[in-house]
Amino acid sequence: MPKISEKKKAYIAGFLDGDGCVMYQLIRRKDYRYGFEIRASIVFYQKSQNYKHLERLKNLLKAGYLRNRKDGMTEYTIVGLKPAIEILKLLEPYCMLKKEHIKTAKRINRLLEGQFNLRKFVKASELVDRFKFLNYSKKRKNTSEKLKNYLKRHKLYPRND
Amino acid sequence: MPKISEKKKAYIAGFLDGDGCVMYQLIRRKDYRYGFEIRASIVFYQKSQNYKHLERLKNLLKAGYLRNRKDGMTEYTIVGLKPAIEILKLLEPYCMLKKEHIKTAKRINRLLEGQFNLRKFVKASELVDRFKFLNYSKKRKNTSEKLKNYLKRHKLYPRND
Repeated sequence: MPKISEKKKAYIAGFLDGDGCVMYQLIRRKDYRYGFEIRASIVFYQKSQNYKHLERLKNLLKAGYLRNRKDGMTEYTIVGLKPAIEILKLLEPYCMLKKEHIKTAKRINRLLEGQFNLRKFVKASELVDRFKFLNYSKKRKNTSEKLKNYLKRHKLYPRND
Repeated sequence: MPKISEKKKAYIAGFLDGDGCVMYQLIRRKDYRYGFEIRASIVFYQKSQNYKHLERLKNLLKAGYLRNRKDGMTEYTIVGLKPAIEILKLLEPYCMLKKEHIKTAKRINRLLEGQFNLRKFVKASELVDRFKFLNYSKKRKNTSEKLKNYLKRHKLYPRND
C-alpha cells in the first residue's frame, strides 16, 4: 500500500468526494464459468487542462491509468478489487460523502477474499446492486438477479443446504 | 477566522479542487459611483441528496448560504471579499488545482484593502479579468475594459500623474 501523509489522504478524500466516483459493477464475461465478474473502479474526472493534477494523484496512489476523452475531459481510473479496496481503506477515515460506498466495498471485499465461493459471490453481487442507488445510476443493466438467472439456467445456482 | 483542523482544511481543499469554483467578477452597479463592484465568491455544487454534506461544510467554515436549485443541485455559496479571502488563505497550503486562483485573489485583496483608491481598483479589475481564463469561462461580459470605458465616459478615469 502506498505511503501517503495523513493530510494528503484527507486532500484526496475531499477530491474524491467532490469529483470522484466509486463503482462496483457486474460485468458480463462469456468466457467465465459463472458468466460474470465483479469489477471495482475508482474514477476521477477533470478537464484535460488539469491532466498534470491527475498525474500527480496517480504518482501518489501508485495505481491506475489516465485517459484523455474526446470531449476535453481526462479520466484517472483505478480498476481492480485489490487496488480499489486498498485506496478506499486509505481514504476511509476522511471521506464524508463516500462513507457508505466504502462500507459496502469492504463488505464485498470480505466476501470475495480467499478461495472462490459461489454462495459468497452471489451475496457479493447483491451488495454490488447497492451501487446503483449510491451512485444514482440509471443505466445499470447487470444486476444480481441476472447473475442468479444465469446460474439457474446453467444449473450452477448454489443450493440452500 | 474559523478554527479548523489541518486535516479538515486539507479535505476541504480537495473538495474545492474537485467540485468547487472560485470566482472574482466585476458586477455592474448603477448606483455605485464607479459603476462596478468587485465580487468574490466561492461555490460548492452537489446533488441535493448531499445537502447535509454542504451544511456540514458551512458549519465548519461559518460563512455563506445554501440554495437548492430547481435542477436537483444544491449550491453552497460564500460571497464577499472578506469571507472569501479568509477561506482561501485557510485552504491555500492544501489546494493544488486552485493555487493560481488563490494567488490572484490575494493580489486583488491587497489592492482593495484599506481606503478606496480608484487607481488600485482599476488594477484589481484587471486581475479580475484573469478569472475568465482560470475558470475557462466563456460568458463573462464585464471586463476591466468596460470599467475603464465607464470611468472615461464619466470623466473619472485616474490620470497618469
